[in-house]
Amino acid sequence: MRNLSMLIDFYELTMANSYYHHHKNEEAVFDLFFRSVPDDGGYAVMAGLEQAIQYIQELKFDEKDIDYLRTKKLFDEGFLTYLLNFKFSCDVSAIKEGTPIFPNEPVMVVRGPIIECQLVETMLLLTINHQSLIATKTSRIVYAAKGRSVLEFGSRRAQGYDAANFGARAAYIAGVIGSANTMTDRDFKIPALGTMAHSFIQSFDNEYDAFLAYAKTYPDSTVLLVDTYSTIHSGLPNAIRVYNDYLKPMGKTLKGIRIDSGDLTYLSKKAREMLDAAGLAETKITVSNSLDEYLITNLVQQGAQIDAFGVGERLITSKSDSVFGGVYKLAALKDNGAMIPKMKLSDNVVKTTNPGVKKLYRLFDQSSNKAIADVVTLDTEVINENEPYLLFDPNFPWKQKLVSDFRAVSLLEPIFKKGKLVYQKPSLEEIRSYHKEQMSTLWDEVKRFENPHPYYVDLSRKLWQLKQDLIEKYAKNS
Amino acid sequence: MRNLSMLIDFYELTMANSYYHHHKNEEAVFDLFFRSVPDDGGYAVMAGLEQAIQYIQELKFDEKDIDYLRTKKLFDEGFLTYLLNFKFSCDVSAIKEGTPIFPNEPVMVVRGPIIECQLVETMLLLTINHQSLIATKTSRIVYAAKGRSVLEFGSRRAQGYDAANFGARAAYIAGVIGSANTMTDRDFKIPALGTMAHSFIQSFDNEYDAFLAYAKTYPDSTVLLVDTYSTIHSGLPNAIRVYNDYLKPMGKTLKGIRIDSGDLTYLSKKAREMLDAAGLAETKITVSNSLDEYLITNLVQQGAQIDAFGVGERLITSKSDSVFGGVYKLAALKDNGAMIPKMKLSDNVVKTTNPGVKKLYRLFDQSSNKAIADVVTLDTEVINENEPYLLFDPNFPWKQKLVSDFRAVSLLEPIFKKGKLVYQKPSLEEIRSYHKEQMSTLWDEVKRFENPHPYYVDLSRKLWQLKQDLIEKYAKNS
Repeated sequence: MRNLSMLIDFYELTMANSYYHHHKNEEAVFDLFFRSVPDDGGYAVMAGLEQAIQYIQELKFDEKDIDYLRTKKLFDEGFLTYLLNFKFSCDVSAIKEGTPIFPNEPVMVVRGPIIECQLVETMLLLTINHQSLIATKTSRIVYAAKGRSVLEFGSRRAQGYDAANFGARAAYIAGVIGSANTMTDRDFKIPALGTMAHSFIQSFDNEYDAFLAYAKTYPDSTVLLVDTYSTIHSGLPNAIRVYNDYLKPMGKTLKGIRIDSGDLTYLSKKAREMLDAAGLAETKITVSNSLDEYLITNLVQQGAQIDAFGVGERLITSKSDSVFGGVYKLAALKDNGAMIPKMKLSDNVVKTTNPGVKKLYRLFDQSSNKAIADVVTLDTEVINENEPYLLFDPNFPWKQKLVSDFRAVSLLEPIFKKGKLVYQKPSLEEIRSYHKEQMSTLWDEVKRFENPHPYYVDLSRKLWQLKQDLIEKYAKNS
Repeated sequence: MRNLSMLIDFYELTMANSYYHHHKNEEAVFDLFFRSVPDDGGYAVMAGLEQAIQYIQELKFDEKDIDYLRTKKLFDEGFLTYLLNFKFSCDVSAIKEGTPIFPNEPVMVVRGPIIECQLVETMLLLTINHQSLIATKTSRIVYAAKGRSVLEFGSRRAQGYDAANFGARAAYIAGVIGSANTMTDRDFKIPALGTMAHSFIQSFDNEYDAFLAYAKTYPDSTVLLVDTYSTIHSGLPNAIRVYNDYLKPMGKTLKGIRIDSGDLTYLSKKAREMLDAAGLAETKITVSNSLDEYLITNLVQQGAQIDAFGVGERLITSKSDSVFGGVYKLAALKDNGAMIPKMKLSDNVVKTTNPGVKKLYRLFDQSSNKAIADVVTLDTEVINENEPYLLFDPNFPWKQKLVSDFRAVSLLEPIFKKGKLVYQKPSLEEIRSYHKEQMSTLWDEVKRFENPHPYYVDLSRKLWQLKQDLIEKYAKNS
């Protein structure tokens, strides 16, 4: 168990200490949400909840932490004792991992004493932001591959060890079939994948000898890297020779080849022809080399003969947009026994937060099973599936749509109640299947890369009115 | 101690097992180098060596690893026993952390039994790639700030926990004055920085009360976030009121303010005026909000009155270019007692590697102390400082330059000899000072962001000739 309690922005501790100093520890509600989808995409994918849960369950401030904090000469001894005895007592609800998520809806809600809410901010954001970033990117790459396999190959370019491990986990949720990172096979049962590097081939006198040696070690799973010298003139002929000389006589086949450079469309088509002509119609062609959803889309459109895409640095760092901008904002605070909605007003209207204690519903059309819209409501509201529901755009309230014949699913699952875990954590395989199933509820128009159709995240009439009232109130006071 | 032995690309294990299977474990030389600088910059910064050393020192395959590997039904029992008894016995040399580094020069060299060289590939690349990425990005940001302070604020958007911790470490090497991440203060003595979030202010009845409460807790280090409602009309007047009402009578001052939104140039100038008029000429102005080297350059050019820049997501993920493309290539292999140079030929000439066992020199001009060029030589060569040296461009060998009056510094330091650490690890403060000093040896033309002058990385005449000979030999054989 790693003690990550000090992985916390220092201001969380100075604020907490000041709250403590002023005997201020009212019940608060914080919403974790994000404002825009990476890569200007139409949807994001929730991930990281399991690690966020683990963090909360293991959170404690040990003597070493307290001794260290004391050296800062900023913290009240009473506060340090409070930390030493810290026990998380908040309610937490969150959207399940693998669910498509959208801007400006709460994906996690923490409710409890404000000091506790504040102390978990950094790690909750860090955990959810990272894995949701990678799950979102991967979901796009898998979508681009149109049913072909995607393999996660990025460890060596990941931003640190956790990025390699938890990044592979997020990628698996979003549909890769395995990872080159052995640790995630051992720890998460994500299938480990991989064959050979160019150095293996170079270490033999010639390519044929290298291929033969590899085939002898792995006759049941021979996958050969064919581009060290020349894919067409050397790699493929040698791979086919090894099949004919060694594998075929043993009743084995050549399982696959990998091409890591050159014109992947041309080379894969040519490789397919050569393999088919050699009686190797079942041999799989894997390609790699700085791939992402855009390049894969092009390869597929050009009719490249590719069975699997090995994707590295552009997935594991989400290179085209390496930040998932989750934020954690105060939504309500208890005052004299009443929960008072709070809102952060901003000159930038999209940065104005949604106040109050809220619920989140996703409406699915009963006949198509497609998601129609998400609706954020006050905590006290219930959406009745048996009555038509009037959706309206919170920014353009005259744009309205009456929907009926829908299922309304409440998305925020209870995770902790008074600090106690009440959530039955699904397995990684369950999360992965659930993600796949949920992706089928989104229209292709929402999933496309260029100018995706904006999915509706609406506010209930009551929440919208509350927000307007608060805006007016703040405007008057400023 | 975390066991990261399974954070390894699966193919390293399958290759190693195949080598073992074929009784093949000759002495090899692998070079770690990169081919291009992120953001099309003129230089990169070496970082991560200390963690790479730690990895090697702690590397072992325990029973749990072996039991897991056995389940894959791919590995020879002899190989698994070899892993269980694994002891790293290679020589490792590397460029010191904090050193400016350039494309196509070895920044780390591993020499020893090929199985061992192969088994450490993934983690060495991962470690050096990540920290060098962040150090490089930070160095640019610090350069843009032209002497103003830069603060690392990115934990919540980092790509995992290690990215927050080791990213802050790399940022500190490259010149930030501290980090919001408390863990790096505790573990690396990187000063923890931070004040308050908007939620702190919102949790009070009004901004003045919030500021006053914070000042009462931290009278000696009151830094106030002034943009929750309106920087000019509310935040600054309230901050000044708290100074006049509370801090000044106590003989204290207002240490700083932070602005996190809006037009930072305009607001900082206005804030400076208001603070100066209130007798607060010493109060520091910090700004934050999606900053990077480009925005900071603009702010500085516009005469913004800023003392410190808080930089978050764009530093900690190197957002504009999130990949450091270090690679690890076979350079030589022993055959019948002789070290045979190896080279990976490529259709893409820049991807052709430099063969053989090599040394790396940096030549400094004696009078200006500026770096003139790096020269990669054969291991057997010595550059004599007392004689003029003929530099030539390896791609355009007729472009030549005779240099004299230079210091020649060998950049690859011995780190491990036969698996034993022989390197005296510098402290983080020493690395940081060394980086600052080394940066002064680069011309501004190399450091600028737009079309930087390409720094020369030349080959010695002998190495160049070896490379030409090998290219010809491979060309004949293919």
